Amino acid sequence: MNRLQRALDTLVERVSTPAPIVLVDVMQDNIERMQRIGEQHGFDVRPHVKTHKCVEIGRRQVKAGAVGITAGNVGEAEVFAAAGFDDIFLAYPIWPAGAKGERIRRLAESTRLRVGVDNVGAIDALADAMGDEPDRLQIVVEVDCGARRSGAPPALAGDLALAARKRGLVPVGVFTYPGHGCTSRDARQRAAQDQLEALTTAVRSLADVGVTAEVVSAGSTPTIEFTTGGLITEIRPGEYVFYDLNNTRLGACTEDQIALFVAATVVSDWVPDQVILDAGSKALSREGSLERGFGGVAGTRAVLAKLNEYHGFLALPAGELRPSVGSVVPVVPNHVCPVVLNFEEYIVTDSTGTSLQRWPVDARGFLN
Amino acid sequence: MNRLQRALDTLVERVSTPAPIVLVDVMQDNIERMQRIGEQHGFDVRPHVKTHKCVEIGRRQVKAGAVGITAGNVGEAEVFAAAGFDDIFLAYPIWPAGAKGERIRRLAESTRLRVGVDNVGAIDALADAMGDEPDRLQIVVEVDCGARRSGAPPALAGDLALAARKRGLVPVGVFTYPGHGCTSRDARQRAAQDQLEALTTAVRSLADVGVTAEVVSAGSTPTIEFTTGGLITEIRPGEYVFYDLNNTRLGACTEDQIALFVAATVVSDWVPDQVILDAGSKALSREGSLERGFGGVAGTRAVLAKLNEYHGFLALPAGELRPSVGSVVPVVPNHVCPVVLNFEEYIVTDSTGTSLQRWPVDARGFLN
Repeated sequence: MNRLQRALDTLVERVSTPAPIVLVDVMQDNIERMQRIGEQHGFDVRPHVKTHKCVEIGRRQVKAGAVGITAGNVGEAEVFAAAGFDDIFLAYPIWPAGAKGERIRRLAESTRLRVGVDNVGAIDALADAMGDEPDRLQIVVEVDCGARRSGAPPALAGDLALAARKRGLVPVGVFTYPGHGCTSRDARQRAAQDQLEALTTAVRSLADVGVTAEVVSAGSTPTIEFTTGGLITEIRPGEYVFYDLNNTRLGACTEDQIALFVAATVVSDWVPDQVILDAGSKALSREGSLERGFGGVAGTRAVLAKLNEYHGFLALPAGELRPSVGSVVPVVPNHVCPVVLNFEEYIVTDSTGTSLQRWPVDARGFLN
Repeated sequence: MNRLQRALDTLVERVSTPAPIVLVDVMQDNIERMQRIGEQHGFDVRPHVKTHKCVEIGRRQVKAGAVGITAGNVGEAEVFAAAGFDDIFLAYPIWPAGAKGERIRRLAESTRLRVGVDNVGAIDALADAMGDEPDRLQIVVEVDCGARRSGAPPALAGDLALAARKRGLVPVGVFTYPGHGCTSRDARQRAAQDQLEALTTAVRSLADVGVTAEVVSAGSTPTIEFTTGGLITEIRPGEYVFYDLNNTRLGACTEDQIALFVAATVVSDWVPDQVILDAGSKALSREGSLERGFGGVAGTRAVLAKLNEYHGFLALPAGELRPSVGSVVPVVPNHVCPVVLNFEEYIVTDSTGTSLQRWPVDARGFLN
């Protein structure tokens, strides 16, 4: 990770900390590598924009070959639709109450919109929201493959597809999220297998009621390595654009593939074996645990052992260099997704640290 | 907490979830109660705006008698200065590198600005930043009272005050943060005692070098109950404006004093003893632990056992009512401060749920 520190040393006079720094060359490599994986396996790549919430990055993903984007909530979809993205999959069991129904109807006018459902109540509410044009909305049935989060049992996918069709909505396929694969390499492999089995059952369930699964959509950065094409038509990775320490630990990326870090300044150093950084829970989000910490400094063994809102407690193991007050260090987050939405903009540079652009985090907020 | 659910039932058609809802009558009571405590004990109240980041709420605090505000970083101070707040204490060991020095100089032109320091390097950098008007900047020396975060040893406060004076800055006093009082009632009481001892030593240390401590500034919502006037001239509580589950557990507030909750919709219910809410880690921040959960539904024993980014896993204990898909429930955060900055605006109502205003979270972001 030393190139992070090199880039930072070059930039340091020009940024106020804490700030998220993107190495655009590393990010671009990540984007293109994922497209190659898609081509090799014969599935489309539909990146999840929850990770970056940035129109410029979404455009680069589409330019590299992504078929469209995945969004996690209506607000995110609206931001990208307004920026001209015309193929959006809202991979979430949307409940279109209040203003949300009307917002979905409007979205479906400006973009090819697919939304997730896992229950009949949501199907009815979506059909009501679409008024006399229910066929503008494509439905992808969510099934559970072991994450025990949202998603119907795979064998019931056909019933939901049929319920959607009866209301005039257009069922186009199934999706699932292998979220139980985020613990180890073995768990990733098992989760990918569970995912394939659940999708296979779900596709059969659709076929049983006469619905063709044109879309068979799978997650996710940590399971891509074990995901094969054939049945699966698309993947929805998000984190791969930046990666993070969690993906490094899982073996889902190398340290050199990490494309985002948070530049932080040492502001206090009175406690032995510790310095205080100006990146706390409001900058890094509280992702991690007491055991493995809340993020690490690239190229060192120093780990944030504790976070207050504006203070990061950087623990310095024996033998580790103690950065002096005023030093700026590159913090690599454990989990990158909840970091980005804390900031208004990315500081975008490359591994040499010479270029500097600022890209807005366009869909920051917009959580509903 | 049933008034939360009552207010929500009235509002539910008019808001998109997840959304932070403020009960303005409860909040106003909290603001006024804290002022009365200040009057009883003879110290000023200088609320920390990190909790709400909202100009309207800051104005209400000042109108109720606050002497000024406390900010946690330069960006926060800038937002409130631009809104006309003219007495701001940046209670943080600022390192004014790069653009930050210039920003502090400009802030000190439009407001009476006090900043924290705990080291000589920062003093020199601040003096450099102030150019030929160092006397526009007031310095409050941070000392540690046991939180082992930032802050010099109390006996060294005088050395730092003298260093500031030598550079033409204006040392006006000392401050500390009793952050080690956030575990139990006893810990709160001990931390308040530690705080008083540290401030007493620090004031003496200033006197020894001929500096009068005009400001002797103490935290913090959980320790106010055990804080006495006399030596201490001001307190900097933040959370009291909304309170949260952590403060309830500590005995620092009652459930009826909680003024903010996050309205969330049940979007999926396939797993026994669990439903999924549309408030995950991006809405609630990951404040809590596996043991005590990540927030609770008001008026029930249901607790968020796990968070993904857009999914809250609400565990339903035996005997607890299972809310149906589409229900909107009031989630009370464990720690309110990192929740607010996830949203663009507050939905402001009262305990009857009949009024509805929207107040911007003005200083959302602005972390550097």
